[in-house]
Amino acid sequence: MAHGHIILSAFFFNPQGDHRMSWRHPRAPGREILDFDYYRDLVQAAERAKIDTIFVADHVSIWDSVKSGVAHYANARLEPLTLLAALAGVTRHIGLITTASSSYSEPYNVARFFASLDHISKGRASWNVVTSAMEEEAKNFGRDGNIDHALRYERAAEYLDIVKALWDSWEDEALLIDKESGYFADPARVHAINHKGPHFRVRGPLNVSRPPQGHPLIVQAGSSEDGKNFATAHADAHFAIFSTKEDGVGYRKDINERLARHGRRPESFKILPGILPIVAGSKDEALERQEYLQTLLPDQVGIDLLSSWSGLDLSAYPPDGPVPPLPDESTFNGGHTSLNRVRQWAKQNLTLREVARRLSNSGSVPTVAGTPVEIADQLEDWFVAGAADGFNLMFPLLPEDWHAFAEKVVPELQRRGLFRTEYEPGTLRDRLGLPRPANRFAEQRDNERAVS
Amino acid sequence: MAHGHIILSAFFFNPQGDHRMSWRHPRAPGREILDFDYYRDLVQAAERAKIDTIFVADHVSIWDSVKSGVAHYANARLEPLTLLAALAGVTRHIGLITTASSSYSEPYNVARFFASLDHISKGRASWNVVTSAMEEEAKNFGRDGNIDHALRYERAAEYLDIVKALWDSWEDEALLIDKESGYFADPARVHAINHKGPHFRVRGPLNVSRPPQGHPLIVQAGSSEDGKNFATAHADAHFAIFSTKEDGVGYRKDINERLARHGRRPESFKILPGILPIVAGSKDEALERQEYLQTLLPDQVGIDLLSSWSGLDLSAYPPDGPVPPLPDESTFNGGHTSLNRVRQWAKQNLTLREVARRLSNSGSVPTVAGTPVEIADQLEDWFVAGAADGFNLMFPLLPEDWHAFAEKVVPELQRRGLFRTEYEPGTLRDRLGLPRPANRFAEQRDNERAVS
Ligand SMILES: Cc1cc2nc3c(=O)[nH]c(=O)nc-3n(C[C@H](O)[C@H](O)[C@H](O)COP(=O)(O)O)c2cc1C
Ligand SMILES: Cc1cc2nc3c(=O)[nH]c(=O)nc-3n(C[C@H](O)[C@H](O)[C@H](O)COP(=O)(O)O)c2cc1C
Repeated sequence: MAHGHIILSAFFFNPQGDHRMSWRHPRAPGREILDFDYYRDLVQAAERAKIDTIFVADHVSIWDSVKSGVAHYANARLEPLTLLAALAGVTRHIGLITTASSSYSEPYNVARFFASLDHISKGRASWNVVTSAMEEEAKNFGRDGNIDHALRYERAAEYLDIVKALWDSWEDEALLIDKESGYFADPARVHAINHKGPHFRVRGPLNVSRPPQGHPLIVQAGSSEDGKNFATAHADAHFAIFSTKEDGVGYRKDINERLARHGRRPESFKILPGILPIVAGSKDEALERQEYLQTLLPDQVGIDLLSSWSGLDLSAYPPDGPVPPLPDESTFNGGHTSLNRVRQWAKQNLTLREVARRLSNSGSVPTVAGTPVEIADQLEDWFVAGAADGFNLMFPLLPEDWHAFAEKVVPELQRRGLFRTEYEPGTLRDRLGLPRPANRFAEQRDNERAVS
Repeated sequence: MAHGHIILSAFFFNPQGDHRMSWRHPRAPGREILDFDYYRDLVQAAERAKIDTIFVADHVSIWDSVKSGVAHYANARLEPLTLLAALAGVTRHIGLITTASSSYSEPYNVARFFASLDHISKGRASWNVVTSAMEEEAKNFGRDGNIDHALRYERAAEYLDIVKALWDSWEDEALLIDKESGYFADPARVHAINHKGPHFRVRGPLNVSRPPQGHPLIVQAGSSEDGKNFATAHADAHFAIFSTKEDGVGYRKDINERLARHGRRPESFKILPGILPIVAGSKDEALERQEYLQTLLPDQVGIDLLSSWSGLDLSAYPPDGPVPPLPDESTFNGGHTSLNRVRQWAKQNLTLREVARRLSNSGSVPTVAGTPVEIADQLEDWFVAGAADGFNLMFPLLPEDWHAFAEKVVPELQRRGLFRTEYEPGTLRDRLGLPRPANRFAEQRDNERAVS
């Protein structure tokens, strides 16, 4: 790896933590989730620990495809672009990653938001490009249902290209602000982009000058085929999910092959698998804490989730009874992965409640639980083996798991020389060892000059 | 007036000041306009002076319908929602108004941005609803040209109604966060809005709980017929333009009649006319400063502006020569108001350059220039006569005109008992004496109960 340090990104979607029901935990925040102070404290703690980035995920809807979700799921939250902008004003070093949907927003607006966040933060902005997969989201934006999967990614590629062109529409030397001559900008270096594609038409130029990073860092999350192809063509970093070191090494190999097809080198692309870190006095204590979180799942939500994943109406079945016969895969319309996981557990004679609780855990993201030394051992192991450039830290319970990691695991990694003890100067890209992208319009002119 | 104090709102679109060319002034900021510190200093100064709000205007394009605009106009700026969110984190009292376009954004996204800004700022967010009139803007959002004027306002009314419904989609009592029972929300108080209108379809509910103000303050700017009708039907405050006290008194009367048609009382609607305040040792000194700003207009921009406003190509004419014969109004396709202003000045034998410089001033917004006492006299006069509830302070040159007003005029108004000396507790609405809007879904249920 070109970069000598583990990259650490502190994640949340639910501000109460990544377990679906952590909001019920006695030590989870209550109404503080609507209060800026809660987030300032979290992020300033991460900055004290020299963590690379925070990553705030996002959806453009509540979750209510399962009816009991409205009552029992923590659906209210702050909008992350406004939140990160506010956090930019009270931090100095930490990177600020958030999600914006290429399906349900306008490229000109999103280009401005991230360009502006990059200026306000002096080069710390990063955009997690998502295509938005939930039915609930589609219905908030004039649609009856989701956009087709392949089409979503086709639109995303065009969208991202427009946004990058808009970020380039002011060359770095375009801004003159020459009071004497009256030239605010060099008109030869400010470009209309005149994009006319199958899905978008955008004239430009942007009304924000080029961001400090050239392009705010582009990240992509999720390991579907389309997702991986999109990421290796267009992104700088990738939030992946795999559960063993061996899978991680294989994953990197696969990604490198995809990168090569786009003429890219492995160093230009950072892979950050998600982990659920639980710092505890011992492994047993950590597992106890995880099991406690599972008990917080209301039976109703568990049954509703199971109903939706098995295609059966299970509402009349007793939660302590067995799982009834499941539909045959060949005639099943829903997700086969979930169905098969339910089937496996049913075979082990687990009750409906027990299966539901297992399903409520964060899928295939591996738990890394134990003492600070044990956790550091595993992170070092994955990092040194080339299975990960760093980690997306998906804390089950906030704020305490976040603080425990920052205060106990980070010093252990620093002791081993695996993590910085001071922030390096420069932008987020500089710190991750990623080059500042060339400007397409400047390149074009250079090429034309070379030809003529 | 129900409200005993003058309302003061400190405005900018160009962060260098409201004169089109103030960026060239030796004391105007240079690259600081891209730096958060510049804005923090401005806003904290306004907060020390107990000013009610800042108002950051916005367009979703650069200005280049006049070709020389790219070279000579200050087209690069920060995006205001991210800027205001960052400012929310470093202020405690001041209201935060910015523009979002109902023509070029999605209601679900805009509802979230302002709801979130209202939470982050503890009830200080305000949305200036605009329909976006520039051709340059339309072309950044998939269109060949502007949306028809009447249609823009029809869409805006539907859009605003959706946003308000989304803000109501979580009733105030909806958020339970009851860890014991597992009820995060009361499902009877979280509402899909299921909007299906001529221009938008939005299901809801929002994924942000109800903002502290119920609805962030709604403002509308600009005095066209459609604008005034829209404002009196839907807004809480109105940025108007008129030039004399008598016009202001007549304006209030006209507005009150429109309000009455919607069953609204005058006190529910605040009128803030724009003024250009210039604090100086004397009136003469103030006028000298204004004339100096006019000399900063590059001849090329002046000629281009005049060409566009007169429908003639004036590029071959000498700037020091007279204005050539102007087109007849009956055959002229452009704006008749601008054409007639050019004609009047041409009749006074002004040169092309002189006419252009006059046109570059901020149209019909009156300059209020003089000593702090003289300025306070005029504000008091308008306020007491009922011509204004307060003022939109459009400073010609930033940051100095802003600081001079805060440090010299505000104390004079305070001495006269016309302006607060401490912020009252509560939200922006509380401070302006505007009630917190009722929740439409709660009202609906109450009505249904009353009937049954
Ligand atoms: C760590 C991680 C974070 C994610 N964050 C978001 C997010 O913030 N918003 C979102 O809509 N999807 C998010 N996703 C989902 C992915 O973008 C993607 O939609 C999902 O993995 C399904 O893949 P596909 O859409 O390519 O089939 C995330 C996925 C992962 C693994
Ligand atoms: C003080 C003031 C501020 C304004 N701010 C904005 C703004 O931020 N963005 C915008 O597009 N238009 C802005 N406008 C323009 C008005 O919204 C409106 O478009 C204009 O007055 C023309 O009116 P009409 O569109 O109703 O014909 C502003 C107008 C005034 C008087």
